Amino acid sequence: MPAGGELAALERLAAILPPPPPGETWIGDDAAVLVAPPAAAALLFASDAVVAGVHVDLDLMSCADAGWKALVANVSDVAAMGGRPWRCVAAVTGASAAQLEQIGAGLAAAAERFACPLVGGDLAGGAQLVVSVAILGVAAGRPVLRSGARAGDTLLVTGPLGASAAGLRELKADRRAGGSTVEAHRRPLARVEEGIAAAEAGATAMIDVSDGLGLDLHRMAVASGVGVELDSVPVAAGASLDEALAGGEDYELVFAVPVPPAVIRRFASAGLRAPVVIGRCVENPAARLLGGSPFEPRGFEHTLG
Amino acid sequence: MPAGGELAALERLAAILPPPPPGETWIGDDAAVLVAPPAAAALLFASDAVVAGVHVDLDLMSCADAGWKALVANVSDVAAMGGRPWRCVAAVTGASAAQLEQIGAGLAAAAERFACPLVGGDLAGGAQLVVSVAILGVAAGRPVLRSGARAGDTLLVTGPLGASAAGLRELKADRRAGGSTVEAHRRPLARVEEGIAAAEAGATAMIDVSDGLGLDLHRMAVASGVGVELDSVPVAAGASLDEALAGGEDYELVFAVPVPPAVIRRFASAGLRAPVVIGRCVENPAARLLGGSPFEPRGFEHTLG
Repeated sequence: MPAGGELAALERLAAILPPPPPGETWIGDDAAVLVAPPAAAALLFASDAVVAGVHVDLDLMSCADAGWKALVANVSDVAAMGGRPWRCVAAVTGASAAQLEQIGAGLAAAAERFACPLVGGDLAGGAQLVVSVAILGVAAGRPVLRSGARAGDTLLVTGPLGASAAGLRELKADRRAGGSTVEAHRRPLARVEEGIAAAEAGATAMIDVSDGLGLDLHRMAVASGVGVELDSVPVAAGASLDEALAGGEDYELVFAVPVPPAVIRRFASAGLRAPVVIGRCVENPAARLLGGSPFEPRGFEHTLG
Repeated sequence: MPAGGELAALERLAAILPPPPPGETWIGDDAAVLVAPPAAAALLFASDAVVAGVHVDLDLMSCADAGWKALVANVSDVAAMGGRPWRCVAAVTGASAAQLEQIGAGLAAAAERFACPLVGGDLAGGAQLVVSVAILGVAAGRPVLRSGARAGDTLLVTGPLGASAAGLRELKADRRAGGSTVEAHRRPLARVEEGIAAAEAGATAMIDVSDGLGLDLHRMAVASGVGVELDSVPVAAGASLDEALAGGEDYELVFAVPVPPAVIRRFASAGLRAPVVIGRCVENPAARLLGGSPFEPRGFEHTLG
């Protein structure tokens, strides 16, 4: 078998991961064996891929960042349902042995940070680096879909937007750029506790800002059959309003609630940063207004040729 | 939003998939919502990717075949644990809109054939087509690992090997080739009922022949700390012994049992093709013998550069 081959790489990867709890078997078999969570809980299942040259520019960020980002994008999908991440698997294609070691480190760091162990996966060759992660999450209560918002609901976001896009802009201007926006681009955080707090406080619909507020909010509005009227959008320090509206990859959560004070109290009692009211859902399903003017449902949508 | 974009493609894909059962929400939200299976069962979680130019040659097979193959490779991982496939997600990168439609058709056909609905996923751009599937399976009893074989156990395989490699050879010689070996290459089948029967009849270790019998059996032997002595290997019609030993992608299951008659009766009573005895596990962990001569643990292992 070739040196630097699949088996050796898997062994190195397994060595940096924590051991499974009793009854579970992780990396090294055909499938990971998991002890099913309590039957009362709903399971959440999602997948998100990060492609070099599409989602990440490896001239501007490391393979470890790419691994982190792939896992966090998945954790954010679970967070946007009001769930808690539980276990994940990764299929990595097109990585060199050196890249794989970095990707593994980034995946392991994010897995530890979000308490979502990497339990298995697949390695294969390829001409382009792709890190595909699939995640299992658990919801204690009813998961929050995109489709439950009603006219009259208040819209809130868990934090200011645009930092990731601003960080990418700064890196393009200067590869050695640093600071909070660059960190937001390279190592975004998913809002797990915020998603759970929003769900518990009665959120009727929720989505994560992965592709851009304008586009993600549009998706929630379409799924719910409502329009949206925004008063203002919180812009992250160093970012422009355009980056906040269309930048994406901030992984803040946007959600609708009938009773905003309850959710604000719930965030406070959980020790979380206060969510920001940005507007409301309205009857007219075509409404897409910011400060009274139409906004475009723009953001990052993959063109499929 | 661009025509032929991600949203439109997702809508077309969702339209060909069956509707979810009550309580579940599939494609169209941040994550699929699943009703957790009974708490008594172990969950199985795995991921396998198919890369164009690595696992599949799109000059010789269709994108629908690639979708089928990606899903079946995952079903086979669950089958090799003695489990039943339950739900899957797919991340498809680098597909054109036309390719995506075909891949979706192949995924949907395999999902229906193996009763494993596609409940979500991700679409993204890229320079090379990659279909990454992740699967959830359920084991009614104790899952069968690779590591449980003991010296004295008999080794069996669920069917003849080498058909997939033979089919690829025939296609390379003539793109219009057809017949059972070509079908085995383009549309392999996973052995779900066989894996469950083997598990129920007391299999101590099991693995699917995905990379080649020599390499996969080597992996099982290493995990179990035993050697293997093979008397003979069943070769599929049209295939060579070398293709049977090193070809891979047959997705037959190889397993070890202490009491072969029990497993043979179990297969017969389930109406399954009789498994074939190929040899036994021995004390010497270095033994890799076929008909008394050493065999190489060869097969398809990805080189990671």
